[in-house]
This record gives sequence, C-alpha cells and structure tokens, in this order.
Amino acid sequence: MKSLVKEPVARIVAGKPICLQDTHVNDSFWLPRILVNRTRTLVIEFELLEKTGRLTAFNLNGKTHQFWDSDVAKWMEATAYSLAQYPDPALEQKLDQTIGRMSNAQTEDGYLNSFYQTRTLLKRWSNLRDMHELYCAGHLIEAAVAYYEQCGKRAFLDVMCRYTDMICATFGHADGQRRGVPGHPEIELALVRLYRATGEQRYLALAQYFINDRGVEPNIFVDEAVAREEANAAAFDLSNIQAHIPLKEQSEAVGHSVRACYLYTGMAGVAVETHDESLWAVCKRIWENLTRKRMYITGGIGSTQHKEQFTIDYDLPNENAYAETCAAISLVFFARQMLLIELNREYADIMERALYNGVLSGVSLDGEKFFYANRLAVYPALIASKTNGDRFAAFRQEWFDCACCPPNIARLLADIGEYVASISDDIIALHLYIAGSYDAVTCGHAVSLQIETDYPWDETVLVRVSSGTTTEFTLALRLPGWCRSPRIKVNGVDTDLSAITSSGYAYLRQQWADGDVIAMTLPMPVEQMEAHPSVRDDAGRIALQRGPLVYCLEECDNGADLSDVTISRSAPLCIERTDLLGGIVAITGTAFRRDLTHWSDMLYRPVRDTVVRKQFSFTAVPYCLWNNREEGEMRVWLQRE
Amino acid sequence: MKSLVKEPVARIVAGKPICLQDTHVNDSFWLPRILVNRTRTLVIEFELLEKTGRLTAFNLNGKTHQFWDSDVAKWMEATAYSLAQYPDPALEQKLDQTIGRMSNAQTEDGYLNSFYQTRTLLKRWSNLRDMHELYCAGHLIEAAVAYYEQCGKRAFLDVMCRYTDMICATFGHADGQRRGVPGHPEIELALVRLYRATGEQRYLALAQYFINDRGVEPNIFVDEAVAREEANAAAFDLSNIQAHIPLKEQSEAVGHSVRACYLYTGMAGVAVETHDESLWAVCKRIWENLTRKRMYITGGIGSTQHKEQFTIDYDLPNENAYAETCAAISLVFFARQMLLIELNREYADIMERALYNGVLSGVSLDGEKFFYANRLAVYPALIASKTNGDRFAAFRQEWFDCACCPPNIARLLADIGEYVASISDDIIALHLYIAGSYDAVTCGHAVSLQIETDYPWDETVLVRVSSGTTTEFTLALRLPGWCRSPRIKVNGVDTDLSAITSSGYAYLRQQWADGDVIAMTLPMPVEQMEAHPSVRDDAGRIALQRGPLVYCLEECDNGADLSDVTISRSAPLCIERTDLLGGIVAITGTAFRRDLTHWSDMLYRPVRDTVVRKQFSFTAVPYCLWNNREEGEMRVWLQRE
Repeated sequence: MKSLVKEPVARIVAGKPICLQDTHVNDSFWLPRILVNRTRTLVIEFELLEKTGRLTAFNLNGKTHQFWDSDVAKWMEATAYSLAQYPDPALEQKLDQTIGRMSNAQTEDGYLNSFYQTRTLLKRWSNLRDMHELYCAGHLIEAAVAYYEQCGKRAFLDVMCRYTDMICATFGHADGQRRGVPGHPEIELALVRLYRATGEQRYLALAQYFINDRGVEPNIFVDEAVAREEANAAAFDLSNIQAHIPLKEQSEAVGHSVRACYLYTGMAGVAVETHDESLWAVCKRIWENLTRKRMYITGGIGSTQHKEQFTIDYDLPNENAYAETCAAISLVFFARQMLLIELNREYADIMERALYNGVLSGVSLDGEKFFYANRLAVYPALIASKTNGDRFAAFRQEWFDCACCPPNIARLLADIGEYVASISDDIIALHLYIAGSYDAVTCGHAVSLQIETDYPWDETVLVRVSSGTTTEFTLALRLPGWCRSPRIKVNGVDTDLSAITSSGYAYLRQQWADGDVIAMTLPMPVEQMEAHPSVRDDAGRIALQRGPLVYCLEECDNGADLSDVTISRSAPLCIERTDLLGGIVAITGTAFRRDLTHWSDMLYRPVRDTVVRKQFSFTAVPYCLWNNREEGEMRVWLQRE
Repeated sequence: MKSLVKEPVARIVAGKPICLQDTHVNDSFWLPRILVNRTRTLVIEFELLEKTGRLTAFNLNGKTHQFWDSDVAKWMEATAYSLAQYPDPALEQKLDQTIGRMSNAQTEDGYLNSFYQTRTLLKRWSNLRDMHELYCAGHLIEAAVAYYEQCGKRAFLDVMCRYTDMICATFGHADGQRRGVPGHPEIELALVRLYRATGEQRYLALAQYFINDRGVEPNIFVDEAVAREEANAAAFDLSNIQAHIPLKEQSEAVGHSVRACYLYTGMAGVAVETHDESLWAVCKRIWENLTRKRMYITGGIGSTQHKEQFTIDYDLPNENAYAETCAAISLVFFARQMLLIELNREYADIMERALYNGVLSGVSLDGEKFFYANRLAVYPALIASKTNGDRFAAFRQEWFDCACCPPNIARLLADIGEYVASISDDIIALHLYIAGSYDAVTCGHAVSLQIETDYPWDETVLVRVSSGTTTEFTLALRLPGWCRSPRIKVNGVDTDLSAITSSGYAYLRQQWADGDVIAMTLPMPVEQMEAHPSVRDDAGRIALQRGPLVYCLEECDNGADLSDVTISRSAPLCIERTDLLGGIVAITGTAFRRDLTHWSDMLYRPVRDTVVRKQFSFTAVPYCLWNNREEGEMRVWLQRE
C-alpha cells in the first residue's frame, strides 16, 4: 500500500478554484440544469432584459432604473461562463452587442451607469446608500472579469478597468478623494476578483478601503443624507446595510441578507489577500453566527420579507420564510471564499447545503420560472388571499419587477464546475461530487481527475486519476458532514480515514499514477433531522434529509393539510428510484394525519384518548424540485411522533 | 318534586337583557376588574382624551382626527354604565361637561363631527369609505342611549336624535336623499339600540337601509371614490369593509374583523326587529363560518395585522395573531345579539370564551395598560427587533395612537352585569355565572336571583330565588359547552337534565317560591384541547383549558424557549389555588423540554433515538392574566407527546 501521510491544515491558505475551462461536467443531476440554463434561461432572460428596457437603457434616452445595470451584468457573467464551455455564436453576439452598448455609453471619465447618465450626472455619487451605483459597478466588473478569464476577451475588461480607475480616484482618504462606501455591497468582492485577474494592487486597495471605512464615524451614510436634506436622515436603520458600526466590530449576520453575504465574501477576500488576521476573525465569527443560528436547513438565509433581512437568532419561520434565492447564492459565495482560505468541510458542507437546496429551488426544471422567496412551507390559499407582490408568490414566476434572482441563479449554474475542486500548493481538493472531468496542474504536472458518480442519488463516488507521469501530490477529499460512516478505498485498498482526516477532509498523499482509482462510499440513509430547540417553528418536527438533499412533501403526492402529517419514529423510511421530476430518488413511508371526518364543524375539542388517525403512504421529493408539477401545498418540517 | 316541563325553543325570540341597574355584581373574579375600571381606567382615559386633544377637538379650532370622536364616545358610554351603579359626582361632571362641549359644537342642522366641522363642512359625507363619520355617529348614539337608559338623563339623547334625524334625512332611496352606507360599520347596531330606546321606527328603518344597501351595485364606495377623482378608485378591496357583494349574499366572515362583527351585530338586530328571515339566515351562516373556522381558542378574531382582517378558513397563526381587543369585544356583541334572538348555548359559549379570554387579556390587572393585538404566543426578542408599531407590541401599552381598544374594553367591563341574564316572555335565562344579585320582572312579578359562586375557579353555582310571591316561570340555565357532566339540584333534588335540556339550556319550569335554591355543579377538570387538523399552527399541540378559561405558560414561571415545552399525554394535571395574580387557580404538572446543553452550537442534527430531555414542573396561568408580572415569553399552544 502506498504511503498516506496526514497533512496538517494551514489556517490561512489561499486556494484557487479550478478553472472552468478545465472542467467538463457530465453529471446526471447537474448537466440537465446546465443545459437548460444555457438553452432556455439565458435566452428568455435576454429577451426579458430587452423587452423590459434594461438593454436600451444604455442608449441613455429612455426608461431606466437604479438596479437595472446589475440585472444585465449578471446575465453577461452567466453568458461568459456558458460560452467558455459551450461555444454559441448567437449568444456570443448578444453578449458582444451588449458590451458595445455599454462601451458606447461610457463617459469620457470612465463612469458607466445608465440611471445617472440618463438623468443627470450631477447627482452621481450623491446617494450611495440607496442608489446602487457601486453595486451595479460591482456586477459589471464581475461580468468583465468572467468574460476575460473564461473566454480571453478583454474589451469589456478594459471598459470596466477604466470605470474602476475612476472609482479608485473618487473614493478614499487621499487628497482629492472623498469618503464613500456602497449602500449595497457587492463591488468589494468584485474588486478582489478584478485584482486577482489583473494583479493591479489599486483594486485590492479600494476593496480594502470599502471594507475598512464601512460603519466608521462620522458615518458617511448619515452625512450624505444630511447633505441631501433628507427628512430624518439619522433615523435610517444602518444595520440593514451593515453600516451601523465598523465591520471589525461586528459579530452577527445582520441586515439585508444579500448585501450581508456579498459584503462578507468581499471582506474574506480582502482578509486573505491583505493577510489581515483581525478581519479574518470577523469573517469567522459572523460565519458562525450565520450558519449556527440564522440559516434554514435548506441553506436559505434572511428570514423576513421586512427589509429582506436577518432577524434574530433561531428565528426561522417556515411559512413566512423569505430566504431569497439571491441570499442563498450569496451564502454559496461566502462559503466558497471561506473554504478557499481554510480547507474545512464546515464551509463546503454549507456551500453544498445551499447549492442543492435553497439555491436550486430558485429555478424550475424547465429553466423558465423562478422563486424570489423560498419558503419551507407553502399554503397557496393563504398566499393568494394576501397581496405581498411577486417576490413572495406561492409559485415560481417568470420574472420580477426587481429581477435580481433569475440572472443570479443563471450565472451560478453556468459556473458550477468551478465549485467542484480547488488547488493550493500541492493539494487538489474535491469539495463537491459532480460527475465530470477536472483538469489541474499540480507540482508542475498536469493531472486529470474523472469523477464518476450518481450523487446525490447514490452513495458511490469513483475518482480516476489520469496523468502522463507519476506525480506526488495530495488529493484532499471532503467527507460530507451529513455522512456518518464514509469509506475510501485507493486502488481497492481500504484507508484508515481516522488517520488522514483533518477538518473533514481526507488527505490522500502519494505518488499518483495514471489509472489510480479512489472509491468513496458515502452511505446516505434517510435521516430525520431536528432543529435546535430554540427554533420555535420546528419544535416537535423533523425534516427528512438524504445525503445533501432536504426533502419535502407536496400536496400532489400527499393530499392537503400537510401541517398535520405525522411521521412515526419507528416507521421504516424507504427510498425509491422513480422517473418523477426527471428521475429522482423519492423517500416513501407510512405517515398519519387526523381524520377530518371526525371533526364535524368543530374548531376546538378536548383531546380524546383514542385519537382517530388515518394512515397513508407518503412520498417525499427533494425540496429543490418542488413546484414542478401541480400547484399545491408544500412542507419541509413534519410532525414527529 | 315539582313539575319540570320541557320548554320548546322558539327559533326567533327577541329576549331582552336584564337592566344594568337591576344587577349587583359581587363576584370575586369580575368585581375587582369593575372597580379598577371605574377608579383607574376611566380616570386615566379621560386624562388621555384631554391630553391628546380629543376633548378640545370639539372646540372646532384645533387638532382633530377622523377617529377621535369615537374614542370619546366609548369613554362616555363606559362612564354612563359606571354611574348607573356607582354614583360618582366627579365622573358625572366630566361626562356632562363633555356632553356640553358636543352640544355646543352641534350645527344648526344637527351634524356633529369634530373632524369635518374643524376642516370644512363642505366635504362632509364625501368619503364614507374612509372617514368614519357614520362610525363616530354610531358610537355617540350608543353613549347617548346608555346615559339615557342607565341614568335617565336625556340631554345627550336629544343631541344625538337631532343628529340621527339629520342622517335619516340624508341617506336612503327617497327623493332628496342620497345613497350611502358606512365604511366602518357600527351605526347599524347603534340605530337598533336607539330604536329600542325611543321606539322611533325611522331609526330602525335607517339601520335596515344601511344593511340592505351595502355592497349593492352600483357600489356607493366606488361611485364616491370616482367622484373624489381618486386614483384607482375601482382597485380598493371592498371585501375589507364587507361591501364587495350585497350582505344577503355573504356567507363568510371577511375583511376588517371589528367592522365585520359590528356589522353582523347590527344585521342581527335588524333581522329580529324587522322579522327578516333571510337576513337571519345570513347571520347564522356567517356565525358558523366565523366561530367554526376563523376564531382563536381565546375568542380572538381577525388573524392578521394586514388590514386588521380575517384571512381564510383555519388560518390562525399564534405568534402573528392580531386578534385585536376590539374584535373580541365585537364578537361578544354579535354573540349576545344572536343569543337574545335564539336561546342557544352555542352563542353564550362563544360570548363567554371571548369575555374570559381574548377580551379580558386586553387590559392589565391594574387597569392602566392595554393590548391592541392579543397574540397567542409571544417571543419578545423577536418583536423588539421589528418595527410594527404600538398596536402590535409584545406587552401592554398605556395608550395607542389609534386608541379604540382602551375605551372599548372600559365600556364592556362597566356593563358586564347586563350580560348575565336575559328575559323573554316567561323565561329568565342565565348565561354567565357571575356572583351577584339580578332582579327581574317576569309574568308580572318581581323576582330576584342571587348567584353565589366562585366561578370560574370553582365548579359550584348556587342560584337562590327571592320573590314576594310564588310565581310560575321558567328558569333557563346555560349548561356550558365546555362541561361534560353538569348536574343540577333544585332544593336538594336531582334533576334529569336530559329531559329538560334544549340547545344547551336546562329549562326549569315550576312555581318558584322565595328561598328556592338551585345548585349547579359544573365539573371543570383540566382539559387538553386540540384544534381542527387544518389549523396549521396548532398541529401536534394542545391548549390547557379549565372551565371557560384558556391557560398559558409564561417565561417567569417556566423559563424561556416555551415552544419546545412538551406536555406528556398521561402526566397528571393538577390545579392549585394560589395568591398569584390576585388569586387564581393555576394548573401545574410535569413537562419536558430538550436539553440545550447537548446542542453545542449545532443548528440541525439527526434525531437521536434517546432524546435527552429535561423534566420540569410547569405552572400555567389564565391567558387573560398574562403579562401582569415580569415581561417575557408566553405561549398557549404547547407540544403534546
């Protein structure tokens, strides 16, 4: 047997994700979604961007809105990822045309924002709190970096570097600069990406400035509101935009959840790139608060529609869950950045939880409809009786007035291959088990890893090594936190995982040769999950989970009144491979509900000693796939006997 | 044994309540509340009416608001009831001064509304939908009737008859009249009272017109909105004001819950006074929908803060319960009017449920603080993190910008004696068991009934008959629906209740002589109540109830995280007489909660076969008395094993 040396984990190691061009996903779970994303989602989103005026806004003579540039930018970024793997001249032409529009619109001094350029440039930078200029710039920067890195085309990168240089010149503490940080964070993480893509220190310095000046007194947001003569300038709740106190003094995930995780991602990026230990400590303590006290089991975050924000520890209502799709996506970004800094499965587990549940629920199987809010229990008749707007609808919608989520999920799906693996020094780490081939260079040698698996439906993952030469490096395999008894064989020989596992990764170090095979077994029995006793809405309830997937009951399989469904503790829970929903593993078993026929028009009655219950066979399906059939009730947390 | 003849129940029999002057409550449960209401609540409310400008508004030259007149009116009505039993020259002077202000303010043509008289009379009646003129008039009429009936002073009645005559002349289908119905119903029930007090048919006719023209096309509210050139005049949700379709076509309790039950009370009054069978049928079917599908176990109604309205069947969230105090009060009015039409305990049971729970919870023991919303589960930290305003606070408040509830509960408490008994033909019916003496005239003879009881703490109710002569009449005693095995002895002899009970009342007919004693025993074990399986928020949970009282757990007795508290099915539930909260019967027993120490920073985990739970002794107190000690969590619906 080859030597398997335990690898110590460095606390801060900046890993790099594998390059998207070096990934070739052929996974039965993800590939259909990637293809639908390319052939349907990106196509209809472009049509909608056009139809709603978001593209012609760059003509600077018509309708416009302070968010719109970001919607276009996210579609551009998604398209860049898609083109990197799936050349498509028609799509590429649309992207280049869009870049042309923007290039034409850019001012002499580099500024690029359809809203202020259509209205008046005199007011630019006058309301950083509400008007999303820096947010839109951030998304445009991300799109430019993606197109440059993935497809090698740098025209748009040049446009955005000019704009960013103008922003660099504008904001800061130096002479001729003014203080200012974004009301909607996003540009921080984009600047870190731009720095990584270009190597230009000034972009990192600007990100660092935006992080460090946030919430510092005198508060820029208060000052600018006073300057605008805003009524009650001091009354604005700055915690909603994470600017109530300096970031380094913060320790809880607060405020608008999407802003929060974009900010935290940027903060973690700045921490690692500037070797700022104290900033890293802030990331860690906010991460802990967020994931241990303020996150749904689906990875959804931001539990209230009210200002789209976090509330308080353990407040995770199911029917009224907001859990915006963008928020789960932003948590994926935060988790991934943390993981690239510290190889710890805690980050990868959360990244996987969000991806396979609260993110993927955001888009329909056909790629044409989207959730903004991702509730964990839906009672359509109640929602129909209220008027909370399209963001909080019972079922997926084709579009939203505030259209942040649809292009956001498109860019993540188009880029999913990059989340599978990362490379750091002589370690190749696998975080997600998505079938495909992943090419990397480690220790100067090209290595290709083939992942063969039917994950998340099946417990077996094969990793085949292809390499022209024998190379010594460490293959770090994530042992998912949900798995109680993982096993790994290398070329048919069992490994002693306890000896080589650190922070949830198995470190396999050896001379790897062409044809080596690692066989992982990740037993995935159905688990009944319970929530912390302080989560009021989940008391007495369990959620069914198998592997990374959280399951739910839908009315079309199980009838209505799902809140009364009780799973008995001892009843066997079976799994069943079915053609439902494009082919899934369903969970089946026996459940009970009270018999309505014994309730003849009573609303309350004394409990009877012999409860009359009806037994029935239930079918649970993955939460991320609900609402792809008949519309009806849905529920994740079930009563447990 | 004397003859006990079963009395058939007529379907429509207009009973009359006993007169307040003929009641002398000396009940250990209610009397302290009545006295505090008189000595504290009425005093501080007058001060607040004065301080906030609600009284000086009638000078017609200062601050005013379209609701304010009604706040003053309810205080006036409460004061009239109080003066009827407890002469108080200082209070009487305040009431007469207030009447003087109003009398001075009244216009030549009878109109009286501080808002429009301060602004411009030209706009009066231009926005019946929103501006509450007829609502304010209704409350003023009720105050005038009360003062006249209870204290014999008719100066204010004359003022209000002049105003009402002016309203009669204004609205209707006749020449010179215009169509119009109140946006906030209330005046309908007030007009029925005014008709009953004065015998003037035109007041009944106006009530009938308001009922019958409501929701009829062309809809008056749409027409007047168009006339005001209101944007989106047709978009207003008319179901919120019960005007979306004609009342006779309605069958569900919809819209703003206080408006709804004031309207239904008026509708029932019109039905009985005009012998309108079809209108009575509407009352019955709305009653059934309301009490069997849209009512909290506390008698609270109107489950959402959103437009203060009913939502849909079985939607009764606990933490987000709105259940406005005024709404529970309006349900008491509706129940009482139904009961006076049909002697059926279904109405009295609901009246009692609301009174002893969701109404009484609205005011603190010291009479100085009030709930607007009466939640069934309170988690103060969450509420503190939100900004829903004083109406939806976690704890009782001294006053509200919209101050409808405090004077509303004052008028009900001051009048509680009237709810005990009613008289119809040769029947004296007892609905509530409140210790005191109740005088009535039946079949031409004066009879006094002494109720001796420690209800709702104790199961025994003695009714002693005092009469100068022996008189044959029927004493109808309500057998509460919550009681499974009531027993009645007449002069020591058991009665066969099955032979004499109809619609939940035991009809005791005989020659009643001075000194006769009826001894009722109403066994009141602690019951674990369950809610209909479609009530999502109560699934798997029970509420503790004993007699008419719903109980709850408070944090000060039981610690925090009450949502995780589990009552075992078999554990004995004990009752304990205690000095807590002015002397109550508490419910005690053994409960469990999960042990937090085993949750070291996890949010979700697989259920373990051996659940680690901590056993503790719980103490439950009546829901109506919660938040009279330390502030903290509260919960009605507990997990049941």
